[in-house]
Amino acid sequence: MPDTEKNYQEKIYDDFLSLLEQKQYGPLIRMAQQQHPIDIAACLELLDDDRRVAVFRMLQKDCAAEVFAELDSDVQEMLISTMTDRELSGIIEELFSDDAVTLLQEMPANVVKRIMRSAKSETRKELNRLLDYPEDSAGSVMTGEFLELHKNMTRAEAVAHIRKTGDNAETVYVAYVTDAQRHLEGSVTLGDLLFAEDQDVIENFMSRGVPCVMTHDDRETVSLTVSKYDLVVLPVVDKENRLVGVVTFDDAMDVMEEEVTEDIEKMAAILPSDKPYLKDSVFEIFRRRIPWLLVLMLSATVTGAIITHYETALGGWVILTAFMPMIMGTGGNAGGQSSMTVIRSLSVGDIELRDAGRVLWKETRVALLCGIIMGIATFVKVFLIDLHMNVASLPVAAVISLTLVVTVVMAKIVGSMLPIAVKRIGLDPAVMASPFVTTIVDALSLVVYFEIASALLGV
Amino acid sequence: MPDTEKNYQEKIYDDFLSLLEQKQYGPLIRMAQQQHPIDIAACLELLDDDRRVAVFRMLQKDCAAEVFAELDSDVQEMLISTMTDRELSGIIEELFSDDAVTLLQEMPANVVKRIMRSAKSETRKELNRLLDYPEDSAGSVMTGEFLELHKNMTRAEAVAHIRKTGDNAETVYVAYVTDAQRHLEGSVTLGDLLFAEDQDVIENFMSRGVPCVMTHDDRETVSLTVSKYDLVVLPVVDKENRLVGVVTFDDAMDVMEEEVTEDIEKMAAILPSDKPYLKDSVFEIFRRRIPWLLVLMLSATVTGAIITHYETALGGWVILTAFMPMIMGTGGNAGGQSSMTVIRSLSVGDIELRDAGRVLWKETRVALLCGIIMGIATFVKVFLIDLHMNVASLPVAAVISLTLVVTVVMAKIVGSMLPIAVKRIGLDPAVMASPFVTTIVDALSLVVYFEIASALLGV
Repeated sequence: MPDTEKNYQEKIYDDFLSLLEQKQYGPLIRMAQQQHPIDIAACLELLDDDRRVAVFRMLQKDCAAEVFAELDSDVQEMLISTMTDRELSGIIEELFSDDAVTLLQEMPANVVKRIMRSAKSETRKELNRLLDYPEDSAGSVMTGEFLELHKNMTRAEAVAHIRKTGDNAETVYVAYVTDAQRHLEGSVTLGDLLFAEDQDVIENFMSRGVPCVMTHDDRETVSLTVSKYDLVVLPVVDKENRLVGVVTFDDAMDVMEEEVTEDIEKMAAILPSDKPYLKDSVFEIFRRRIPWLLVLMLSATVTGAIITHYETALGGWVILTAFMPMIMGTGGNAGGQSSMTVIRSLSVGDIELRDAGRVLWKETRVALLCGIIMGIATFVKVFLIDLHMNVASLPVAAVISLTLVVTVVMAKIVGSMLPIAVKRIGLDPAVMASPFVTTIVDALSLVVYFEIASALLGV
Repeated sequence: MPDTEKNYQEKIYDDFLSLLEQKQYGPLIRMAQQQHPIDIAACLELLDDDRRVAVFRMLQKDCAAEVFAELDSDVQEMLISTMTDRELSGIIEELFSDDAVTLLQEMPANVVKRIMRSAKSETRKELNRLLDYPEDSAGSVMTGEFLELHKNMTRAEAVAHIRKTGDNAETVYVAYVTDAQRHLEGSVTLGDLLFAEDQDVIENFMSRGVPCVMTHDDRETVSLTVSKYDLVVLPVVDKENRLVGVVTFDDAMDVMEEEVTEDIEKMAAILPSDKPYLKDSVFEIFRRRIPWLLVLMLSATVTGAIITHYETALGGWVILTAFMPMIMGTGGNAGGQSSMTVIRSLSVGDIELRDAGRVLWKETRVALLCGIIMGIATFVKVFLIDLHMNVASLPVAAVISLTLVVTVVMAKIVGSMLPIAVKRIGLDPAVMASPFVTTIVDALSLVVYFEIASALLGV
């Protein structure tokens, strides 16, 4: 966002805080009712506990629930602790079921008990049903509130039905059409309804072939389907094709963002977290970083063993040691480029498993181009600078250049093929990013280096 | 997606291809009209040129334009080459303006000329206006087709207006309310319209305080705003707050996906591309990968120089060489974890520039925990295994463990602070990921290693 001029959101903060400082609570509440719940939530989070509770209590009931859903879980917990059971029940009944499920997943056990006790029995049943779906499944991110029409309704009946029930739906953009057994048959947008005539029958102007997912599909399938078909709402059906819930595009976008963060963490050899960085404890961050660091460190002892193995031979050519970091670094960088490209392409669907051959062929050619250019650059550099300074010789320059070509080709092949291989056996390709590839390529490139040196220098 | 059962999309492909093989063109077209344009586009892309042209020509005009917008640019170019100017004009007039702009940006100059010549003068003017916005600005991704209402219209007038003009709007979910000078004043969803009474005046039930962006805002601001406020449509205003266009959530999702890919490419030391991997030429991929490889390779010569500098001293302790790769590798991995975490947190907004101090404090503590554990692990390992095999000595084990602690702390501080520093001077933090951090940490960790060795071993 531009720093030069205050953006939309900063203006809201400023207005809110100045009204609060002047204790102008009337105008403050009037202003709040007109703002987006997420902005009110952001403003509330800036306040101390007492003032936050005071302002929150002044909000209207439906607005309060919307704001509540947007708050951080620690703030939610604090507010709940100040509510009577009856107030808590009021909030829970107003929340959309997916937000209520998220709340339950984040609260400590005693708060969960209190929430469940305060909820009406029907709500409690619905929440338990949603909580039963496997973590990270479509069922676990869907909401039970949606618009449902029957295919033999007329437009007038449909509008009347929506006017009566629409208030409970999370999105009032699309309505789903079902038969008597609740099988999903089609959809109509509110635009379709607006354009139709009163006596038109839904069945005659609904869209058929509505993309949908099943309750047990992975939540990644949810975000991919929403993004592929540009859906505002994605219906979720059970095994009998009965409509049981919907996922809205904003929840799908959140899933997409979380999946990307998870991928990037895996690429960086970190165990995934579901908390923002600043909210995570030092110990928790440590716990998620240390396992791979240790594994990679132990794997690196292989590299050490390789050096020890060639050590005595190396004695005569100490100069070779000086180029080791450059060769290993280049291998790591070249391999990392390929693995990150392949991992990302797999995750957005630009590459499928069946493309392995095409990827291999492409990477080999790219690697040869890169390797040869880098080999030449190094040869010239070693020849012009290092030889001139009497630290290297022509055969050494040849060894290093040749090693670079072979290392880059090897690194790019390993880097591009490992993620595909890992995906084929059903694991997440993201773990095969730079750190892992580097460790493997380090060892391989040293063997190549010393073998080429043995052959050309006779060490 | 699950491989065990065919998913929604695969079933469509199968049906489509079997109808096509049986030359059942009638049912094929009827089926196509009922499918989502993106599925028809995907099916078309599987066909050879002749059959693709034949099927495309059978589609109804409005459906054809929607399918056309979803096709790959090379297929679009091929289809355009088979169209008369009149047919081309028909497609262009049916396209939404943002899709037409994307088409123009991807076609070669001669095709662009033909498209502009075929378009009606009003369309041409609109396209030129949109093409004038800076690349990657909100203006460049918005569309000019949206629903606009006046605040003093009644609900009945508004519905009549939408029925008349709504067909041209890209989304018929939200309408924007403006005053006589087209200043953006509020919004109503079609749901609001459906729930209102005929004589209600728009002004009285519209939402005020609509989040919006300006034409020159970065497209990243667009996707952040859409995702933050969960908007189906985001209005774009000019400097005078006049409504000039809208961006729909699906285009914002595409922007988000492209930005993530760009970030990951930068993290992998690759210059960003806007083409999918398999469509990019070998030379193009090479051109985007070689610059950083060369820069990083040349920087690695510093590491070489450090080794050369300590070389003579090293002579007596060849064993130290064997641990170099492990120490450098660990530094690179530890620094990469921190830099990738900070880069991602900056990009999703979990960390702001002002949090630099908190990040530094957190990373230092995490680094100490990681460093000490790894130092102990290494000491035990060297003591138990390597000492036993007579390749190391107790002082060597101490040198390596101490070096690891210092290296990890240093790597995590460099890795976490570099992206923040780079962002502060206005550059993209993503370039400060593993490869760059590794190169710096490699050099630093070797200096630490040799200095500690000098002190403890007296080399």
